[in-house]
Amino acid sequence: MAESPATLIDGIAAERLPADDRGLAYGDGVFETVLVHDGRPVWWQAHLDRLEQGARVLGIAMPAAAAWRADCDALCAGTSGRQVLKLLLTRGSSRRGYAVDPQGVPRRIAQCLPAPPLAAADGIGVRWCDLRLAAQPRLAGLKHLNRLEQVLARAEWSDPAIAEGLLCDADGALVSAIAGNLFVVRHGVAFTPPVDRCGVAGICRQYLLGCGAQVRSLRRDELLAADELFVCNSVRGILPVTRLGDRRWPIGALTRGLVARLARAEPAFAVEW
Amino acid sequence: MAESPATLIDGIAAERLPADDRGLAYGDGVFETVLVHDGRPVWWQAHLDRLEQGARVLGIAMPAAAAWRADCDALCAGTSGRQVLKLLLTRGSSRRGYAVDPQGVPRRIAQCLPAPPLAAADGIGVRWCDLRLAAQPRLAGLKHLNRLEQVLARAEWSDPAIAEGLLCDADGALVSAIAGNLFVVRHGVAFTPPVDRCGVAGICRQYLLGCGAQVRSLRRDELLAADELFVCNSVRGILPVTRLGDRRWPIGALTRGLVARLARAEPAFAVEW
Repeated sequence: MAESPATLIDGIAAERLPADDRGLAYGDGVFETVLVHDGRPVWWQAHLDRLEQGARVLGIAMPAAAAWRADCDALCAGTSGRQVLKLLLTRGSSRRGYAVDPQGVPRRIAQCLPAPPLAAADGIGVRWCDLRLAAQPRLAGLKHLNRLEQVLARAEWSDPAIAEGLLCDADGALVSAIAGNLFVVRHGVAFTPPVDRCGVAGICRQYLLGCGAQVRSLRRDELLAADELFVCNSVRGILPVTRLGDRRWPIGALTRGLVARLARAEPAFAVEW
Repeated sequence: MAESPATLIDGIAAERLPADDRGLAYGDGVFETVLVHDGRPVWWQAHLDRLEQGARVLGIAMPAAAAWRADCDALCAGTSGRQVLKLLLTRGSSRRGYAVDPQGVPRRIAQCLPAPPLAAADGIGVRWCDLRLAAQPRLAGLKHLNRLEQVLARAEWSDPAIAEGLLCDADGALVSAIAGNLFVVRHGVAFTPPVDRCGVAGICRQYLLGCGAQVRSLRRDELLAADELFVCNSVRGILPVTRLGDRRWPIGALTRGLVARLARAEPAFAVEW
C-alpha cells in the first residue's frame, strides 16, 4: 500500500474519512491539484475559482477561501521545492440514494503529495488511446471526481517511455491528454480543442489562452500535421511532445517561447534546458 | 450529518476509510446494492457475478466470494425484515495519478442500511429529466462509482410525489430511470432499452428478461403510447408507474402478473396490494 499522504479533513489532520462520504459513493465532488513552490501555491486564485465553479454546477456549498488557504499553509508552509497540494470538495456524508440532502455538510479534504517532474530536454512520448471520451455537456470542463475514463485510458499502456495518452471523443475530434490539455502548433499559432462537451478546462490551458493560444476543433490528421505539439497541466507546466509512434517533432520555437514565458511568470516552472 | 451505517472494510468494523482510496479520488471501483430479507441476501450470485464482471472490466482483482459472504453474514445475519447491503470494491489506496499500481490491493467495503419501501398500491409518479446520459460503451452496463449523472438528474426536482426520473441519451433514446431500469409494456410484451452505450444492466432487469421481457430501443413517444409502464431495481422490485405529468396509467395485467411472479420467486418482494 502507498504511504499515506499528509491529509487534512475539514482542517483537521486525519488519514481516514467517513465511509458514507458521497465522494466515495458517487464521485460526488470536485478536486484541484495545485503546484506549491517553496511553500507558495501557484495559480491559487484560478484553482479556487474553478473549484467554486464546479461546486456551483454540482450544487455543493463552497467553503470559504480562507479555509482552503489555511489548509494549504498548514500542509505546505515552510516546504522547499515543488509539492502538489490536492484539494477535494465532496458533498459530504449522506444516507444511501442519489437525492441530495439540503441539510448536508460538504467535506473539505487537502493532501500534500510529491510533485511529478517537469519536462526533460527531450520532451515526452505520447500515444493514441483507444478509449473515446463520452460527451456530457453538463460536466464538461469541470475537474470532478468521476474519472474512470482517465483510469481506463491510462491503463492502455505500461511502457514508461510513454508519458501521456491522446484522447478523442466519439466523433473522432481531439479533446486532450489524460492528465493535461493538448496544444497543436500550426503556422505559428497554438490551438487547443474546446472543452464544452468533454475534457477539463485546465488552469495552465487558461494561462496559455491568455498568451495568444486559440480554441479550435481539431482532428487527428491535424495533429499529425502539426509543426509542434505540447501537453500542459498546472503541476507540470508545458510538456513538449516529441514522439508519437514513428512521428517525431522538434521542440519548436513557439513551444520554447511559451516555456520561457511561463518560467518568467512562474519560477516554479523553470526548466534546465 | 447522517448517522454512520454499520460498515466493514476488508472485513473489519470501521467507520472510516483511508483518504487516499481511489474510490474517492476517481470513482475507481464498482458497487452493488443487495436486498437482504430476514438475513438472507436476495439474488446474491447475480450481484456477485455483476461485481466480478465490473471488476474485470476495470482490471481490479475480485475478492473471494466467501469474503463477501462473510461480510454479509457479519452485518445482516439475524436481522429481520428487509435491509440493504451495499458492497463496494475499489482499487484501494494509491499514489496520486491515474496510472494503476499493479501491486495495488483492492479494498472491500460492506455497509448495512435501511431498505426503501416497496411500491404502494397506487404505483409511483415519474418525470422526465433534462439531463441526457452520455454514451460510454466501455463502462455501459456496469454499476461503477462514477454516478454524477445520476446525482445531477435526481437534483432536478424535490417534489416528494415524484419517485423517479426518466433518462434519455443524447440521441433521445430512452435508457432507464435514475435508480432503476425502465420497462414499457405494449401489446402484451414488456420492452426495456439496451444498456450497451449507457445505463446499468440491473439484476431485476435480468430477472425480468428471463420472464419473457425483451430488449428493444425505445423512444419517448413509444413510452407515452405504452399500455403499462414500470421501473425496477433489485432492492425495490417492480415499481408500477402510474403518473407522468398529465398522463395516467393503470397498473395493468402484465405488470400485476410480473409483480405476483416476482413475489412467488422472492418473498422479499411480496406487496400488500
